[in-house]
Amino acid sequence: MSKDNIMKLTDGLFHRVFDEVAAEYPDIGTEHQIVDIGAARLGARPEGFDVIVTLNLYGDILSDIASEVAGSVGLGGSANVGPSMAMFEAVHGSAPDIAGQDKANPSGLLNAAALMLTHIGQGDVAARLQNAWLRTLEDGIHTGDIAGPHTKEVVGTAAFAQAIIDRLGQEPGRLSAVRAEAASRIEVHLTPRVRATKALVGVDVFLDWTAHERHPGRLAEPLQAAAGERWRLDMISNRGVKVWPQGLPETTCADHWRCRFLWQAGDAPSHADVLALLGRVAGEGLDFVKTEHLFTFDGQPGYTAGQGQ
Amino acid sequence: MSKDNIMKLTDGLFHRVFDEVAAEYPDIGTEHQIVDIGAARLGARPEGFDVIVTLNLYGDILSDIASEVAGSVGLGGSANVGPSMAMFEAVHGSAPDIAGQDKANPSGLLNAAALMLTHIGQGDVAARLQNAWLRTLEDGIHTGDIAGPHTKEVVGTAAFAQAIIDRLGQEPGRLSAVRAEAASRIEVHLTPRVRATKALVGVDVFLDWTAHERHPGRLAEPLQAAAGERWRLDMISNRGVKVWPQGLPETTCADHWRCRFLWQAGDAPSHADVLALLGRVAGEGLDFVKTEHLFTFDGQPGYTAGQGQ
Repeated sequence: MSKDNIMKLTDGLFHRVFDEVAAEYPDIGTEHQIVDIGAARLGARPEGFDVIVTLNLYGDILSDIASEVAGSVGLGGSANVGPSMAMFEAVHGSAPDIAGQDKANPSGLLNAAALMLTHIGQGDVAARLQNAWLRTLEDGIHTGDIAGPHTKEVVGTAAFAQAIIDRLGQEPGRLSAVRAEAASRIEVHLTPRVRATKALVGVDVFLDWTAHERHPGRLAEPLQAAAGERWRLDMISNRGVKVWPQGLPETTCADHWRCRFLWQAGDAPSHADVLALLGRVAGEGLDFVKTEHLFTFDGQPGYTAGQGQ
Repeated sequence: MSKDNIMKLTDGLFHRVFDEVAAEYPDIGTEHQIVDIGAARLGARPEGFDVIVTLNLYGDILSDIASEVAGSVGLGGSANVGPSMAMFEAVHGSAPDIAGQDKANPSGLLNAAALMLTHIGQGDVAARLQNAWLRTLEDGIHTGDIAGPHTKEVVGTAAFAQAIIDRLGQEPGRLSAVRAEAASRIEVHLTPRVRATKALVGVDVFLDWTAHERHPGRLAEPLQAAAGERWRLDMISNRGVKVWPQGLPETTCADHWRCRFLWQAGDAPSHADVLALLGRVAGEGLDFVKTEHLFTFDGQPGYTAGQGQ
């Protein structure tokens, strides 16, 4: 899942790399969903999902939705596996407000431990643990966070763990039992990538500017003077929306302006050309607070147009 | 909802402004939730929510979750109200793949129209429309996206609209009828704010650097030379994680480095001081691709430390 219909470059890069990696595994089916409707479907019909590949922030949200709809965020275990190291933890945070009160559901950590045991080749131990855990849930012995109509006894952390220990060797009756997986160590393969050819073509200069009642046309005047012969003022945007040239007077402008200069003097500009431009911008009395250099990568722009441009 | 436990400055600003505005309306109760667990609760127990105030991207996701769990994203109407203008639309996108096929559920647009009618003082007309719509749903006349066990007839866009027209003047029997609201125009009041006092204290210089097998210690050498007497190299981070000084050798480094310089020569640096620093960085053969100037606002830093710093 991504939001690459809007964040075309950042989420778009993620989607493109996903497609590249997917092509290396043609026997695994894939489907891309926009994260807003994908999150909605996950909440309403979780049975339609298997593995979700997504960006960090979305994964943070989606993993909580998936865990909660399955019963509780207290249930989910998590594996973080890289090329040379792996780390296993509960999906949820540390919840310091209930620390030491014998209240927390230990299921998340136990399921993380099961993932770890499987990863290091002890799938039989993991299955034994998870089957005892499923049997405990099935017997209606629950911590407070998952208590419901099928609960027979609400217990604390220690009593829940003891109930699982008491059932080691047993299997669930109605739920599906976990079968030991012999070798399911996750191997991360990184395909070497060729570095793209990068070429500097412009610079976005961000200004803090409130003069002349924030009228973009008045800002364009000193910027065009600063551009000189070799740079060209291409656009001014405010909060992502193009306000010059030919902006809409209705656009509410904040203090923070993006002013895009493109190089138009043949060969790529040097760092000195960028600094000379910035010096002239400052010389016009303008307060630049940030710069983003604009590059093409293998000829493709690594930056987006302003909204409305 | 926000993610201000992680994005302390951006989401934190949103949360702070929310608290400031909330203080102007003491009769309205408020509660802050982290967006991951908030989204999970919205999907699993939507009845616990009333109004959700959040940032754009989260709102995009949360509005789809809320609509879908209520039946379909096809149902939700949306109001965008500013100080001088208002716009009303369906919560969902334009779905060009089913345009002109008499398939789309018109409920989102009808509910948006009801919001608009209420906003312009025609709450009685809005109530008439929404009650006929509720009666249509109750009578089991549904478009395909909401067809389910209670559906008596699956219809297209036009037939669904006609069924609502046929019921104008009727009210739902089991669902709660909508009562006309006399004056519920949304007024947006903006409290004037005092501009904070901004002071430049440093600059983050972002480099594209792959030399010396990306060893941060080797990068620090030319950067310290570039700092000179008046700037101090405070930190180098890679993907947000501090890698110098005293980084962990396990941190995987990408090409993109943030190098933080703090001013240590008394009075605030000028733009010329920043450009002189950048000139020396370029003079060391380093390729800077972005800069972020570091300010304090009323004495509080407007930038965060590197992870691990």
